[in-house]
Amino acid sequence: MKLIRYGKMGMEKPGILINDKRYSLSAYFKDFDRDFFATDGLAQVKELLSRGEDLPLVGEEERWGAPIARPGKVMCIGLNYSDHAKEAGMPIPREPIIFQKGSNTVVGPYDPILIPRGSEKTDWEVELGVVIGKRARYLDSIEASKDCIAGYCLANDVSERAFQLERGGQWTKGKSSDNFTPIGPFLLDADRIENPQDLDMKLWVNGQLMQSGNTDNMIFSVHFIVHYLSQFMTLEEGDLILTGTPPGVGMGQKPQVYLKLNDVVELEIEHLGRQKQICHNA
Amino acid sequence: MKLIRYGKMGMEKPGILINDKRYSLSAYFKDFDRDFFATDGLAQVKELLSRGEDLPLVGEEERWGAPIARPGKVMCIGLNYSDHAKEAGMPIPREPIIFQKGSNTVVGPYDPILIPRGSEKTDWEVELGVVIGKRARYLDSIEASKDCIAGYCLANDVSERAFQLERGGQWTKGKSSDNFTPIGPFLLDADRIENPQDLDMKLWVNGQLMQSGNTDNMIFSVHFIVHYLSQFMTLEEGDLILTGTPPGVGMGQKPQVYLKLNDVVELEIEHLGRQKQICHNA
Repeated sequence: MKLIRYGKMGMEKPGILINDKRYSLSAYFKDFDRDFFATDGLAQVKELLSRGEDLPLVGEEERWGAPIARPGKVMCIGLNYSDHAKEAGMPIPREPIIFQKGSNTVVGPYDPILIPRGSEKTDWEVELGVVIGKRARYLDSIEASKDCIAGYCLANDVSERAFQLERGGQWTKGKSSDNFTPIGPFLLDADRIENPQDLDMKLWVNGQLMQSGNTDNMIFSVHFIVHYLSQFMTLEEGDLILTGTPPGVGMGQKPQVYLKLNDVVELEIEHLGRQKQICHNA
Repeated sequence: MKLIRYGKMGMEKPGILINDKRYSLSAYFKDFDRDFFATDGLAQVKELLSRGEDLPLVGEEERWGAPIARPGKVMCIGLNYSDHAKEAGMPIPREPIIFQKGSNTVVGPYDPILIPRGSEKTDWEVELGVVIGKRARYLDSIEASKDCIAGYCLANDVSERAFQLERGGQWTKGKSSDNFTPIGPFLLDADRIENPQDLDMKLWVNGQLMQSGNTDNMIFSVHFIVHYLSQFMTLEEGDLILTGTPPGVGMGQKPQVYLKLNDVVELEIEHLGRQKQICHNA
């Protein structure tokens, strides 16, 4: 089941993707937000589909929004692929590095990347996104994480490396500019991913393959991460977790390469679709 | 004008504090959230009050909630008082250190502090909270910040130092546990604070004065901070900024002192009221 949202930024409506066609669910659901997940919305969508009712098509001209409403929080795992830690010149973490992005950075899969004013080091990061479906607080086993995951989506954790690393502590400064978290095109419900630790992921810049990896190279698995986070904070329904990026970011090139006006970024993860962003100036 | 919210956690209603009495505004406003501030809600409250209509009293038994709805984001400034940087054993920052807390940590001024499971270093931080009233993006002067501030509130930036500093990078890990951001009792509109850089602030633990400072010791002023943040991210209406803490936190004591079950934390800032929290186990 592939949930989508469509419409103007900030006014998106819920829908579903079936055989590459978008159908509206706005007559049935207000949005794919915390309330939706907390009231077992996914089961309701399944039930609705099982009735086989006609659903209205979404117009092709409609913008693709992020597949979930603005999350309560966006928590990210840093350096979660050992090869990426190496290219970033940082030690392999002994336990997950957590950082946070502003929730208002979440946009649709084809919205432009906005290069911040004064930026010279805007970078890309293909990542597996995890959406929480059930409140997770002090989970008592890694296994218990499984029940708390609504689904998975493709994400680009856009980052400004100078803001992140050269402007005084704490990564959020380089992670929270407008449009820095394209997600989608769809949220795939967790049932449809047999093993989240075996997904190929790739990212191209101007047609050139830059990142190529597989989630089996994560240092900390998706289920470990959800369990771990739940020991430090309450994860709520609709929260988004970005699980780290494989090698091949701009900062890791020799010499380093960063995004510039009109560059085209494309990315994909197995089963989770493909994104395309063009770089604009903020 | 002192905005308050009252009622059960997650179901708070808007109100106003006049002569130490709480009156409900729930017949007029849905909540003090992003929409409220974005549609010039403060001016509407003023207009309503100017009509001199009778407002219903809030029952004394009603819980005091946070004075604003859950913010879109909570951005914090680290080490913004030079003496606190010194006690933390860290260099004085050359530009603001930004970190983020989960928005779901925001609670009312008298809710318990929840000591996280496994915590041995839960600490206190009295801080001046700034609530954004108008979208701030690439502000072109420090002066322009003034228009973007809705008001001020008292905040306790509760922190778990081991989680923050000893568990692998990035402070958000020690800042995002449940109930870690009591704010209130009220939001004072910005017009009523003549100079945000001259406010006495104090914090007591079990009756003993631990923190005593004044916002004139901030390294980066409130207006500088809002301007600065706006260069890295869009600040939205209802967002909360915590502006740093003066010396006297538990980590700064010799030997260090941390919160334990049933400890009582009280704090106040000139013109912004007083909070009281009792420590419970999470």
